[in-house]
Amino acid sequence: MTTGADILARTLADQGVDTCFANPGTTEMHLLSALGRESRIALHLCLFEGVATGAADGFARMAERPAAVLLHLGPGLANGMANLHNARKAASPLVNIVGEHATYHLDHDAPLTADIAGMARTVSDLVVTPTSVDAMADATAATMAAIAGPDQRVATMIVPNDLAWQDTERTAKPHAPLPARPMNPTALPRAAAALQKGDAAALMIGAPYITEKIARLAHAIGAATGCRVFTEPTVARMARGGDIPALRRQPFHVDFATEALSGLADAVLVGAKTPVAFFAYPNRPSLLLPTDATIIDLAPPLADIEAALQALADALGATPVEAANPGISSGDPTAAITAETLGRAVASALPEGAIVVDESITNGLHMFAECAGAARHDWLNNRGGSIGYSMPVAVGAAIACPDRPVLCVTGDGSAAYTLQALWSMARARLNVTVVILANRSYRILANEMSKIGAGSPTDATLPLMSLEDPAPDWVKLAEGHGVAGCRVSEAGALSRAIADAMATPGPRLIEATM
Amino acid sequence: MTTGADILARTLADQGVDTCFANPGTTEMHLLSALGRESRIALHLCLFEGVATGAADGFARMAERPAAVLLHLGPGLANGMANLHNARKAASPLVNIVGEHATYHLDHDAPLTADIAGMARTVSDLVVTPTSVDAMADATAATMAAIAGPDQRVATMIVPNDLAWQDTERTAKPHAPLPARPMNPTALPRAAAALQKGDAAALMIGAPYITEKIARLAHAIGAATGCRVFTEPTVARMARGGDIPALRRQPFHVDFATEALSGLADAVLVGAKTPVAFFAYPNRPSLLLPTDATIIDLAPPLADIEAALQALADALGATPVEAANPGISSGDPTAAITAETLGRAVASALPEGAIVVDESITNGLHMFAECAGAARHDWLNNRGGSIGYSMPVAVGAAIACPDRPVLCVTGDGSAAYTLQALWSMARARLNVTVVILANRSYRILANEMSKIGAGSPTDATLPLMSLEDPAPDWVKLAEGHGVAGCRVSEAGALSRAIADAMATPGPRLIEATM
Repeated sequence: MTTGADILARTLADQGVDTCFANPGTTEMHLLSALGRESRIALHLCLFEGVATGAADGFARMAERPAAVLLHLGPGLANGMANLHNARKAASPLVNIVGEHATYHLDHDAPLTADIAGMARTVSDLVVTPTSVDAMADATAATMAAIAGPDQRVATMIVPNDLAWQDTERTAKPHAPLPARPMNPTALPRAAAALQKGDAAALMIGAPYITEKIARLAHAIGAATGCRVFTEPTVARMARGGDIPALRRQPFHVDFATEALSGLADAVLVGAKTPVAFFAYPNRPSLLLPTDATIIDLAPPLADIEAALQALADALGATPVEAANPGISSGDPTAAITAETLGRAVASALPEGAIVVDESITNGLHMFAECAGAARHDWLNNRGGSIGYSMPVAVGAAIACPDRPVLCVTGDGSAAYTLQALWSMARARLNVTVVILANRSYRILANEMSKIGAGSPTDATLPLMSLEDPAPDWVKLAEGHGVAGCRVSEAGALSRAIADAMATPGPRLIEATM
Repeated sequence: MTTGADILARTLADQGVDTCFANPGTTEMHLLSALGRESRIALHLCLFEGVATGAADGFARMAERPAAVLLHLGPGLANGMANLHNARKAASPLVNIVGEHATYHLDHDAPLTADIAGMARTVSDLVVTPTSVDAMADATAATMAAIAGPDQRVATMIVPNDLAWQDTERTAKPHAPLPARPMNPTALPRAAAALQKGDAAALMIGAPYITEKIARLAHAIGAATGCRVFTEPTVARMARGGDIPALRRQPFHVDFATEALSGLADAVLVGAKTPVAFFAYPNRPSLLLPTDATIIDLAPPLADIEAALQALADALGATPVEAANPGISSGDPTAAITAETLGRAVASALPEGAIVVDESITNGLHMFAECAGAARHDWLNNRGGSIGYSMPVAVGAAIACPDRPVLCVTGDGSAAYTLQALWSMARARLNVTVVILANRSYRILANEMSKIGAGSPTDATLPLMSLEDPAPDWVKLAEGHGVAGCRVSEAGALSRAIADAMATPGPRLIEATM
């Protein structure tokens, strides 16, 4: 006989899951034992649940297949929810397994009893609670089929403890893979005609993964028509550097975005949503395109974007155009670390094949631009906006790609949310280099306060945006988690420290004092 | 004119709120500005939302009045949910304010859009979303009245950003305070008769706050009748030490609990729920009383427990009985730190008036028992079971009681969930002493795994319960957050370090190597 936990673990492995990020408790002990018996699945302990869910997000982005997450009851799920939110917005497939009290125990309102399904629904596309041990195998297989499709990427499976410990002989039925969303072929002639208006038209690309092929097709269409080409402001994974054409991101800030999109008569959406402001501001629009622009929806999010762009290129007769690497600007290596010098420092240090996880917030604009001139790399960004995403995502990306160095560049405020990710980097000896941009403030908030009409920071409110008094010592925080750390305050030293850390196995943290 | 944010802040202050724990973002800038203008409210930045919600819980327990919490959208709420769960189970009144996108922005599915109300309902007794700026004042006053009553202790107010920045002239209507839940007077004669059966009867007390008066009344009833007297396994705040009678807690573990309750013919519940196992285990009961025991429900949770016990004492003719302080056992100061020596070390170091926040998990049993012999103090425990509660609760307790030293004793695994609380201790110069019980493992899980029938840890699963490789360095983690730290490995040194830290202003962390 096989327990429900065993059949769950076996079905996950049969469906290709080889990695599980876990923070289990008593109600997950049968699941943990069974996962331990399933030799095809590697287990990674995370000291906080937001690290586990973020790591699964990063794993999915780089491996393009799901990892499992194992969490303890409602509070464990709650701690993982912010990064599940981000994973869902990035359309990262993952299966999030949450232990639940035994079915017969739920009526008694024990201390840890909570509305797990209610929590899960707010951050999951699919919530499954098997109601018998014999349903476990098939529920698992159906969930894995669902998250491989375009509609239900983040699934939460709630496993009552008695179903995990009971025996079953039932195995999974086969589930057909779900098709990608179709493009809209009737829109193709209109899209092609619109883009031929040149600068009065825009091609807006919203693929969660901008592959090299997507970048080349988009670049070719732009070159053939003169249209503006934008990706969404944040992209889950973007191939860049080397001779890959650098695509322009739609600006993040509402004023820059409306300016970048001004004068457009037509916008062709390929996997993109209608551009929307990150936040609402008084007397500023929520929707960013000119109100009289025509929107042509060629392919919905998670359609086959490469195929849609190929069809568009074919209709336009657009053929690949070589893209010259723009190179990296030069500067004084003794200069202080600023948003501008940071860009050069990172770009010049980036080795071929690097994975960059970007949570640089106010300091990132130049870095993204400069790195177009770096060696080939993948760039990961946060589509959900919940901060504390980057170090956990770096953990998962490094586990998915053990042969590629990972660079995580994060604001100090952001890093403080999920700093326990450092410990998982040390435990698994991951080649992750973390750069902490230590400006000792939530710098973005001082900007946002006046922009949104709430005045300027005062003696009473400035301390709420400041990480001074005391300034976190990130070298000690790294060392406390078992990660070697150093501190630099000049651009050249930062670049050398990044290059050295990425060439050296194991994790390292660099506090870049700004 | 006054903005919606201003009227919210003013109404909170009018209702007695003087403390707000905050981690705001763009959608909370108007709220932050208004709170900054309201001189009656002090603002405390927390670097992670679970610190803010836990601090509000700790504040409520010690101040017996609510603090406010200010969080950023759905993901900010998500990060605060685990400690909201704990606060709710502890019946700690608090008002949790969550910023939301402007009403007209919600349809556009911006990156940070989430089902905030859906999240909030899972951890709140009351969720309020004002639908116009003119509704803000009254919604706030009604919420404050509700959380002062017995039914809706944890309230979440969701504030759309446009309602915060619009102007209003509307102020709050008065709201009558809600009455406590009544006791059940018809049960009084039955309860008194039952307890006179002596050892075959139990008095079960479930007050979130066991005051000195409750302890003396319960002790008197026990002495007069010979009945067993238990508190619930965890109590939000318990007066102990000095000449306060030490009450016995119902044991946490199902086997010890069923043994402690075996042979009971009657159980009189005063503010307590029917005893239930923390978790379900195969072949063990969920309900802990003998199946044929008669349950007499004298007063529901959050009734006036002191009045109910006084009525019971009067009916029984029970009068106060002096309780001798049991003293503290002595031991070798050079002994290693174990669960047993920890108890003595803490008890002998505890100054008069201390507040102890207990998250000692597997190491806490002796400590609780020994501290009955210490000087008078208050003991705080976790009624929700979600770990990572103690350092945040210690922050709030210290802010509520600036003249009382706070001791937080926590397992290392637990401390890792919300270690950012250390920074808030440093920022506010709180007299909190944190003892990290560094056994470098989730020790409880190894016990639980076999107890629940999931076998013993294996080479594959033991690393999931181990915090070795690398062992966190808690002195560095403290110093990284601006808190002085030290490390001790002998019981006598631990006791001296605790006494010294509690007598010295400001926070300190002691890593107790076990």
